[in-house]
Amino acid sequence: MFQKQILLPQDQIPRQWYNILADIKINPPLGPDGNPVKPEDLAPVFPMNLIEQEVSTERWIDIPEPVLDVLAMWRPSPLIRANAFEKALDTPARIYFKYEGVSPPGSHKPNTAVAQAYYNKVFGIENMTTETGAGQWGSALSFACSQFGLNCKVFMVRVSFDQKPYRKAMMEAWGGTCIASPSQETKAGRDALQRDPETPGSLGIAISEAIEAAVADTSGKTRYSLGSVLNHVLLHQTIIGLEARKQFGMIDAYPDIIIGCAGGGSNFAGLAFPFVYDKLSGRQVEIYPVEPKACPSMTRGPFVYDHGDTSGYTPLLPMHSLGHAFVPAPIHAGGLRYHGMAPTVSQLAEEGIIEPKSVGQLESYKAGVLWARTEGIIPAPETTNALAQVVKEAQRAKDEGREKIILVNFSGHGLLDLGAYAKYLAGELTDFALSDEEIERSTAITADYPRPERLKNV
Amino acid sequence: MFQKQILLPQDQIPRQWYNILADIKINPPLGPDGNPVKPEDLAPVFPMNLIEQEVSTERWIDIPEPVLDVLAMWRPSPLIRANAFEKALDTPARIYFKYEGVSPPGSHKPNTAVAQAYYNKVFGIENMTTETGAGQWGSALSFACSQFGLNCKVFMVRVSFDQKPYRKAMMEAWGGTCIASPSQETKAGRDALQRDPETPGSLGIAISEAIEAAVADTSGKTRYSLGSVLNHVLLHQTIIGLEARKQFGMIDAYPDIIIGCAGGGSNFAGLAFPFVYDKLSGRQVEIYPVEPKACPSMTRGPFVYDHGDTSGYTPLLPMHSLGHAFVPAPIHAGGLRYHGMAPTVSQLAEEGIIEPKSVGQLESYKAGVLWARTEGIIPAPETTNALAQVVKEAQRAKDEGREKIILVNFSGHGLLDLGAYAKYLAGELTDFALSDEEIERSTAITADYPRPERLKNV
Repeated sequence: MFQKQILLPQDQIPRQWYNILADIKINPPLGPDGNPVKPEDLAPVFPMNLIEQEVSTERWIDIPEPVLDVLAMWRPSPLIRANAFEKALDTPARIYFKYEGVSPPGSHKPNTAVAQAYYNKVFGIENMTTETGAGQWGSALSFACSQFGLNCKVFMVRVSFDQKPYRKAMMEAWGGTCIASPSQETKAGRDALQRDPETPGSLGIAISEAIEAAVADTSGKTRYSLGSVLNHVLLHQTIIGLEARKQFGMIDAYPDIIIGCAGGGSNFAGLAFPFVYDKLSGRQVEIYPVEPKACPSMTRGPFVYDHGDTSGYTPLLPMHSLGHAFVPAPIHAGGLRYHGMAPTVSQLAEEGIIEPKSVGQLESYKAGVLWARTEGIIPAPETTNALAQVVKEAQRAKDEGREKIILVNFSGHGLLDLGAYAKYLAGELTDFALSDEEIERSTAITADYPRPERLKNV
Repeated sequence: MFQKQILLPQDQIPRQWYNILADIKINPPLGPDGNPVKPEDLAPVFPMNLIEQEVSTERWIDIPEPVLDVLAMWRPSPLIRANAFEKALDTPARIYFKYEGVSPPGSHKPNTAVAQAYYNKVFGIENMTTETGAGQWGSALSFACSQFGLNCKVFMVRVSFDQKPYRKAMMEAWGGTCIASPSQETKAGRDALQRDPETPGSLGIAISEAIEAAVADTSGKTRYSLGSVLNHVLLHQTIIGLEARKQFGMIDAYPDIIIGCAGGGSNFAGLAFPFVYDKLSGRQVEIYPVEPKACPSMTRGPFVYDHGDTSGYTPLLPMHSLGHAFVPAPIHAGGLRYHGMAPTVSQLAEEGIIEPKSVGQLESYKAGVLWARTEGIIPAPETTNALAQVVKEAQRAKDEGREKIILVNFSGHGLLDLGAYAKYLAGELTDFALSDEEIERSTAITADYPRPERLKNV
């Protein structure tokens, strides 16, 4: 029988996360006064133990035992050889995928949701708030909160709330509360509804509502949670790449190419950062974050200081950004519709340590359907972006006549996104292109902000 | 770290299925003339290699290598300790679940779909037809056919077709064709539409359409496939229990109680039959198939000869049945809404080797939600029936003060059934009870059929 899966025994699960801030420097976040944000400035929003993790430069950070106990429900995730996909592509490349769809909510998001819920719990927090667009993150945090007995309130962008009632049911099955944003519960929500009672909502408004709801609880028992972009979020995801390295060790191999889709950056970073560590130590490896052409923050957006949210409530972060008011086209990969990119990922791209790529929606779904018909698993729309790049790299390996090893992060399954597949198969999806003028217009918003320093780590 | 999962290394996957017909006798299926059906009578419907398997009495049957290669995408499935569920129930019992939701379609159904597609392929078949109710089986066969390059046509009961468009998208993602039944493609369908143009359809009509579509292809390149009830279908599912036995061997343990939900019987049998084998050899083990109170074929239906389909096209099978015209209440566990029970499972129940139980819809969802909030995975509606019985056994273990080991077959996840959870959480679901008069009325249909012989295997 063909060895399809490489399973890491559960007792060999990584016990520490890898913190890339031990090995690279990034520009600091800036507050409203233009000065670097101090940890205590963030205290009303996040618990101090996570803030300390956000600014830590320790290379290895212990994963708490109670977090491991929950991750053990589905981790280590399998590393699987995509031999049927290889055959369909007629490539000499060996393609492996790290399958994150095995988690209860079906994506990589719980890797950090569980950790964040744990740290909030031990800090004495009782309620968590967050926002969600397509629903992956809100589902993951609801699941994580149910594990630690925390209440979870999710502000879900109204258009998704109405289109995807099953996501709400999922959050409620885990005991979470899911309300359409804008809501009457916050000033930010009420203001938005006053401006336009029929507004479909936006991630920017939902973030504002979730932060406001956390800060407004004067008992101090409520905090906010973010599902990507921040250092500690990406840190928690590195268990993916650390497991993958061990799994390649089991078959005495090492990947030539690492690929992950990138919205805020957490899925990509989770797989890639441990390999970046190797690369910074001299290892040869090509590392590609893949973004949609409809939201090309790294491939077409400048490296600037910008806000993480639309309303400009967050500190200024040093990142590749299309401008915080940018509204991406309605592609179905909702998790990749974000104007910016995690500061660490942006810095690595800026220095050429990783090489961003972009793909179109139609080529992504084409790769996704080929995947389903060969490897069986129906990929999440976000994942199909990474798969489209895998197709290109497999073709390049064929052109070069080389048996390269390609490793891709399979961020999740698409069982809650089948509506998008129905549209694709019915020929109802389109590609979205951005003109230079559109990019210029949307990025102009950061023109008067401070510029990040040109750091050189390598 | 707590050892949550017991993972069987992939190279230790079982290489043979267990055939219970080596160890028990059942009454033969009867044709329209009242005589036992001969293999060649079934040849227009099934390929001969599967018919031979249907009547085989070999105890161990080799799993073909190409079938293993496909199963290896997700098998061996994990055996997982439900320690959080145990804790919530405050029980001394140790609860383990065999998690079948890891397959691409999310249930145990592909275990036989893959095998059936393979045997059809090697027999020279090019097209397969089947019916589906809620969509699990049609999805599984579409997936399996994509693996062997077969065309797959699924007749889906219209009411489900309209309510669950995502199931159609799923089948199409795998290249299958899904059409609403009754359709204009068959005489059975056209007749049904003529009788009632607004009919919601039924599994009985859909089976008739699928069989007719297979038999009507005069090229001989099309065959029909059934997802439960038949001997060869249950045979293919025994890999579940065979893996579980090996996994318990890894922790030097053996279950006291085996539980699985039962509609047609394939999920239950897949886990239970290898343990029945042990029980027939003298091992002490309690084995409980669990059915919904709304469709209690074993707990309230008589052991009779009856047709497998509503239209009476199939041979008469010796089974517990509520009568082939029985229309179960619209419970959400669609896979358990079947009037009969597999002949082998029925025979074991008749002899007391296994002990059927029945549970209500509300207690099932209550157990399902508790499961989601403790073990994370949101169970399929069918699975919640088994979990409701686990709750009872956990309580009994507590009452008796005994650390029993309970093993449950977790047939699938509920990510495509979240609508049912939304209704349950909103208080919109109800229980369904059947009066003795209703049972008497529905079972009267078999009054004039031959009676099965009272076989005694033990």
